[in-house]
Amino acid sequence: MRQSQLFGKTTYEISKDEQSVNAQLLIRGGFIHKEMAGVYTYLPLGKRVLSKIEDIIREEIDAIGGQEILMPALQKKEDWKTTGRWGVDIMMKVKTFFNKEYGLGWTHEEVVTPLAKKYIKSYKDFPFFVYQIQTKFRSEKRAKSGILRGREFLMKDLYSFHINEEDLNKFYNKAKDAYFKIFDRVEIKDKTYLTFASGGAFSKYSHEFQTLTSAGEDIIYICNKCNIAVNREIIEDLKQSCPVCGNKNLKEKKAIETGNIFKLKTRFTEAFNFKFLDKNGKEDIVLMGCYGMGLSRLMGTIVELFNDENGIIWPKSIAPYQVHLVSIGKDERAIKESEKIYKSLQMEKIDVLYDNRNESAGVKFKDSDLIGIPLRIVISKKTLESNSVEIKKRDRDGFKLVGINKIVASIKRGDINNT
Amino acid sequence: MRQSQLFGKTTYEISKDEQSVNAQLLIRGGFIHKEMAGVYTYLPLGKRVLSKIEDIIREEIDAIGGQEILMPALQKKEDWKTTGRWGVDIMMKVKTFFNKEYGLGWTHEEVVTPLAKKYIKSYKDFPFFVYQIQTKFRSEKRAKSGILRGREFLMKDLYSFHINEEDLNKFYNKAKDAYFKIFDRVEIKDKTYLTFASGGAFSKYSHEFQTLTSAGEDIIYICNKCNIAVNREIIEDLKQSCPVCGNKNLKEKKAIETGNIFKLKTRFTEAFNFKFLDKNGKEDIVLMGCYGMGLSRLMGTIVELFNDENGIIWPKSIAPYQVHLVSIGKDERAIKESEKIYKSLQMEKIDVLYDNRNESAGVKFKDSDLIGIPLRIVISKKTLESNSVEIKKRDRDGFKLVGINKIVASIKRGDINNT
Repeated sequence: MRQSQLFGKTTYEISKDEQSVNAQLLIRGGFIHKEMAGVYTYLPLGKRVLSKIEDIIREEIDAIGGQEILMPALQKKEDWKTTGRWGVDIMMKVKTFFNKEYGLGWTHEEVVTPLAKKYIKSYKDFPFFVYQIQTKFRSEKRAKSGILRGREFLMKDLYSFHINEEDLNKFYNKAKDAYFKIFDRVEIKDKTYLTFASGGAFSKYSHEFQTLTSAGEDIIYICNKCNIAVNREIIEDLKQSCPVCGNKNLKEKKAIETGNIFKLKTRFTEAFNFKFLDKNGKEDIVLMGCYGMGLSRLMGTIVELFNDENGIIWPKSIAPYQVHLVSIGKDERAIKESEKIYKSLQMEKIDVLYDNRNESAGVKFKDSDLIGIPLRIVISKKTLESNSVEIKKRDRDGFKLVGINKIVASIKRGDINNT
Repeated sequence: MRQSQLFGKTTYEISKDEQSVNAQLLIRGGFIHKEMAGVYTYLPLGKRVLSKIEDIIREEIDAIGGQEILMPALQKKEDWKTTGRWGVDIMMKVKTFFNKEYGLGWTHEEVVTPLAKKYIKSYKDFPFFVYQIQTKFRSEKRAKSGILRGREFLMKDLYSFHINEEDLNKFYNKAKDAYFKIFDRVEIKDKTYLTFASGGAFSKYSHEFQTLTSAGEDIIYICNKCNIAVNREIIEDLKQSCPVCGNKNLKEKKAIETGNIFKLKTRFTEAFNFKFLDKNGKEDIVLMGCYGMGLSRLMGTIVELFNDENGIIWPKSIAPYQVHLVSIGKDERAIKESEKIYKSLQMEKIDVLYDNRNESAGVKFKDSDLIGIPLRIVISKKTLESNSVEIKKRDRDGFKLVGINKIVASIKRGDINNT
């Protein structure tokens, strides 16, 4: 992509109505635009990051047998009345001009349970796992955390269905592993703790995935022996001790919930009377689990964790582009070589943002740091005199000179190191 | 995918509350589930088709320079008041528990125009083209046409911005060509007519893309000389003649609008006072075009066009799977060979649905026709006696025997023909 044509621009202003680091950096880098409190547009750079996160999540959920579907945001009043959740504060309500009323989906148990009931009757059809990546709406009164807590946001929600607890437990553990694989791929695994939370009326515990960051709205208590944590809601019940080993020396930390998994068991299948026929032709109640992960929240968390005073530092797996090619000055040879390298990188299918704008080196470097692409190539008259170009990693100081004829091959091989 | 595990089932019942062929066939094939009038869930098979349509549209819009963004469904009351469209019937209205009111997006001019104004000031930044593939909501009083006209549906909406009419006209023609490329790839180009429609206050004409089908809610008038059409809205003004050649011998046909393109010119840029600075530093008004295409409507139109009495006949480019592998009977060798071919096809990255269910040949063939995958391989004890398998194209009668050792390579090369 030629940066001269890129829609969305960097800005050096700090938005007064944005208190969160993630929103400030994403707005300054030209990734998102704030429409209203808790409502954002994703500009081309931001949409690219979001799509990469989507691909990673889809791959890992497909890998544990998830089948992708797409359920609607408009939801039936009757079904929410069935579970007693019509009229909860978090739900936005929709009206048509002919006075038809809907709930606007903030979660999908009330859709997926009757849906599954329609198709599934026999024990032979179990277990099954369906998920979607879809827009959720929530009446968040205070939406001050940028894309960490939106009124409209993208979420992956997975639902599993089982004929017994053993099977539910087995899949629950698989989903847990899949979540850690996702966190690993977006490079936040080492800061993310499996966190024990309340299981409600049906289970002893549910689990949150809490990622340590000073921007977190949650407080968690970490057991360093077990490498797990406990959330604030249940720490008193546990008498300030680890639910796994009993360790009383827990560390208090701020964190953000980047995922949650919950054994719903019969919470919704009872409400909708969703039963199956077992081997002996006897009816039994279906068990259920749900597994949520907010895509925009994950993106915001990554920004909170990977930045410095100059801007965002994207992990490679979700960076909008892999290479930022920055052409400096109006020297004819520099422009010619820049165009050549741009085309070579494209030929090699390496995602490249090419700063071909008529701006000073200072502006270009500042913008490049703000955008935070992992690798920067700088082409200038000066280094071309020794037939070389400058390369720099966003997450390291210093740069390195590489021969102009070797640069594309080096990037392709991935053997670029700052020195 | 093993069909025994596929979520969503075929059904032979004809839904009483569905009058449309597309909804009936899609429900019977296990592609969609009706939630409410005009609101559907896409089951795994349906989601796969929808995603393939999405990929095709994305590729063709990217190819003409479209930059993908994602705008919200929740929209500002003030901006709709600015254009005088707050409170139109088609708009659903949303309320939070703290009485904040939003419009629910049925189109995005009121979002994209202020957004573009924020980032774009100079003639140097023009032209630019942004689009999204996003969920729209519309208060359709009568939603009886299945996924052809939904209350919630996926749409691609592209917006272009220009400094003069010449530039707008140039892109408008490019977009027109891109639309025909999309129709070509989903195999409905030969039935789709560029159709002259009213241009409103700002342009003489806009254009619809109308695809001939008896399910169409529109009437168009075709000029066979020019290969274009005129819609009902303007045919009287044109005195029943072709706007290109004047031909008065137009043919009346039923059609469905599968796309529309519109030179909005200053309709929205005036309302939001979106101006740019020209070469001489003088302010001038921005010109705009918009280009819509409904993904679910396109999918529904294709179903209306490609079916027979036994079910859907998917064009290859958007079929949920390329191959339906049907294993018949309980013969040990047949099962072993089916498993082998299933794995080989997967190794070759050929999308395959494998009917490994414990059902009769009759049920499997009936389901296979309903689902409508382009190529069917049947493995049975009988043909294995001559070391061969049966292959059949969904859109042709008859079948062919192919050697068991040659089948995967033949499919890979694409040289399968019925005889």
